[in-house]
Amino acid sequence: MAKFGNRDKPGKNLETVAGNGLIDRRALLGRGMLFAGAMSTGAGQLSAAGAEPLTDDPWSLEVGEAMLPYQVPSKFEAKVGRTLSNPNNEPRNSHARTPHHLLEGTTTPNGLHFAINHGGVHNIDPEKHRLVIHEVKTKTLEINIETLSRYPMTSLISFLECGGNSAPLFSPQPLQETVQALHGLVSCAEWTGVKLSTLLEETGIDSKARWLIAEGADSPHLSRSVPVKKALDDAMIVLYQNGERLMPGNGYPMRLLLPGYEGNMNVKFLRRIKLVEEPAMSYYEARTYSQILPGGKAYRFYFLQEVKSFITKPSHGMALKGPGLYEISGIAYSGTGRIEKVMVSADGGRSWASAALQEPVLSKAFTRFRMPWRWDGGPATLQSRAWDEAGNVQPTRAEFIAVRGELTKPPPVLAFPNQHYNSLTSWGVASSGEVKHVYA
Amino acid sequence: MAKFGNRDKPGKNLETVAGNGLIDRRALLGRGMLFAGAMSTGAGQLSAAGAEPLTDDPWSLEVGEAMLPYQVPSKFEAKVGRTLSNPNNEPRNSHARTPHHLLEGTTTPNGLHFAINHGGVHNIDPEKHRLVIHEVKTKTLEINIETLSRYPMTSLISFLECGGNSAPLFSPQPLQETVQALHGLVSCAEWTGVKLSTLLEETGIDSKARWLIAEGADSPHLSRSVPVKKALDDAMIVLYQNGERLMPGNGYPMRLLLPGYEGNMNVKFLRRIKLVEEPAMSYYEARTYSQILPGGKAYRFYFLQEVKSFITKPSHGMALKGPGLYEISGIAYSGTGRIEKVMVSADGGRSWASAALQEPVLSKAFTRFRMPWRWDGGPATLQSRAWDEAGNVQPTRAEFIAVRGELTKPPPVLAFPNQHYNSLTSWGVASSGEVKHVYA
Repeated sequence: MAKFGNRDKPGKNLETVAGNGLIDRRALLGRGMLFAGAMSTGAGQLSAAGAEPLTDDPWSLEVGEAMLPYQVPSKFEAKVGRTLSNPNNEPRNSHARTPHHLLEGTTTPNGLHFAINHGGVHNIDPEKHRLVIHEVKTKTLEINIETLSRYPMTSLISFLECGGNSAPLFSPQPLQETVQALHGLVSCAEWTGVKLSTLLEETGIDSKARWLIAEGADSPHLSRSVPVKKALDDAMIVLYQNGERLMPGNGYPMRLLLPGYEGNMNVKFLRRIKLVEEPAMSYYEARTYSQILPGGKAYRFYFLQEVKSFITKPSHGMALKGPGLYEISGIAYSGTGRIEKVMVSADGGRSWASAALQEPVLSKAFTRFRMPWRWDGGPATLQSRAWDEAGNVQPTRAEFIAVRGELTKPPPVLAFPNQHYNSLTSWGVASSGEVKHVYA
Repeated sequence: MAKFGNRDKPGKNLETVAGNGLIDRRALLGRGMLFAGAMSTGAGQLSAAGAEPLTDDPWSLEVGEAMLPYQVPSKFEAKVGRTLSNPNNEPRNSHARTPHHLLEGTTTPNGLHFAINHGGVHNIDPEKHRLVIHEVKTKTLEINIETLSRYPMTSLISFLECGGNSAPLFSPQPLQETVQALHGLVSCAEWTGVKLSTLLEETGIDSKARWLIAEGADSPHLSRSVPVKKALDDAMIVLYQNGERLMPGNGYPMRLLLPGYEGNMNVKFLRRIKLVEEPAMSYYEARTYSQILPGGKAYRFYFLQEVKSFITKPSHGMALKGPGLYEISGIAYSGTGRIEKVMVSADGGRSWASAALQEPVLSKAFTRFRMPWRWDGGPATLQSRAWDEAGNVQPTRAEFIAVRGELTKPPPVLAFPNQHYNSLTSWGVASSGEVKHVYA
């Protein structure tokens, strides 16, 4: 017997669990909880069998192109790129932001991983590159890629986020920008390399050492201070990104990975690790990443990227095509550990329901959440809020601003002086279907 | 107090667990079980502190290049590419093989995912592409990308393997080829799309339907028959590969994914699914993928890619630089489920030890295994052998050949007529350090 879902009875079996049309996440599990109706507004057509609906499209009537040693995306996906803050490579820093609104799943492909560079992207010859580890006063270890590759390796799926990601949300008015502009300085990949602790066993650690200074081989020799405790925990000297060697803009041929710590500390083009008694108070830790508080004081050494989430679909700039069933989907992560739960609201925070979390849920990695939603065609405000396994919760904007402040007026460009924004993001859906960035 | 590992006492704390120098995998866990000695033969130098060992390399004295919207690997990694069986795009099939000996971790980056195409790589316009689902006799569902994107999505990390992968090992003599040539027709990625069962709930399934025929929009309209049971289990219409849209050679804009089933069935450029009572007996299922047995009979509908593993490092074509500590590393996977364990031998199968499995160990996905090894400079034969959670074990070559046979002489090119080889791979290490493909 044919079974035709609930096309004729939309809503049957789809239990509403929070205001404005949020549907029980178990509806995503498939059979038994039917999820239909998408057909009713899209281009899908269900018709009686008979005439052949397919014709031979032009591409099937000709020979395709040759395969390439290294695949690149279809020319029809040319719009799926990183946005560049400095495309003419002027003598300042350069940001390349990940287009989260055009991606799915949890992996950021290497072509689209975010990057920030302060002296451009250097063409480093891996055969000439050296990593030097200075133990406090007594010893120096010099190592090249070939030798480093002899050490036992480990792999870790981890997000990496700039401390300045999401900083546009310090603006007093919601900037009308996409999720790429607002949250594009975070990505997630599988990193493979040698644990830093393995190398430090080789050099030994002077009992006076409390910090290490990591330094890059880029032209500014960017350097940051890292607690030895983190170095001995899960720090890694990374050689591979999603299986292949690091991308040039992501620190090729080797970089430091400090899972969950702000991106700038994960020093790229790593050439030196120096064990020391006191932090260096380098430019980036003494100025840029010292977050300014409302009273004029500043946080110093605020390393952790705290629990955060944002909805990628639908998001600013998209347009819903009429009432009906949609999937709300987004990304959650925490520098502390695993994501415990993500709640979603369609009514600006008045009511909430638990989203489905895509397995596997891994520590300090992107977790994709999904929530079925029936849009009734009225105004809606979509938000997500994440909890991590340590019980940390993403603050509401009111809670966040009370502690951290906001700017009195937005800067002229996307260059915000503050850091570590991890509050909620809200997307307002108008009756027209248009989605905009709002504060709620 | 400084602690200097065991540089002066190589071997201390490194318990041997099997013949020819295999070391307890717990040595990989870091502190407490020191893993040192790599320095002794590499370019690493441990010296007294004093003179500055680093000079400013040329790249740090100039401005780097601009970032790109879509990153590509360093020019120094130009050798890391897929090998092409048909680079001039002659009118026959084309293979692009993954360079496993140059990769690490478990993700195959999109640029290097294997692909086989039978009519070249088509430039399919996603806005014009349609998927049609024919329910047995009564209904037809036509759907485009935009509508498909409205359905609930799911993500899955899964390997994909050509039924013909590893077929060169049917040769009576071990072919002197790299792991890329021998095993390069398997890759692993995170796939995101819509479960086929979700769409079949929309069309309904006629009670007579036992199979579906999946057909591609490529010029040969490649088609394969799939049991309805698999379609309702974990089959997926894939739109995204490692977060971005499918690569053109991997079926853009949509493909079928049948986790654990032979690659050819995972129809690319998917344009039609037809529910039917009997299989189509299409070209690929009636001829190519009907495996020939020693008695002249053939298997038909042998869909499962069975438990397999191979060592990628060291492997054929590499050369060890002198005795000392090395890491043996490789990939294991099973179309049945999770990998339960991987055993490694350094003496051609006389003794075995358990390798460390990199977490997370996921069903039907690549699992990276690692094994510390002290090479004493004598001849060694390295093998890996995998078990899956259902108790399936990778057969020895003798066991495998007894059932499946081998060729009496190898074909002139890497074009073997048989399929589904999943026996062991052996790498012989000579006293010179040279690594070659051997049978053992």
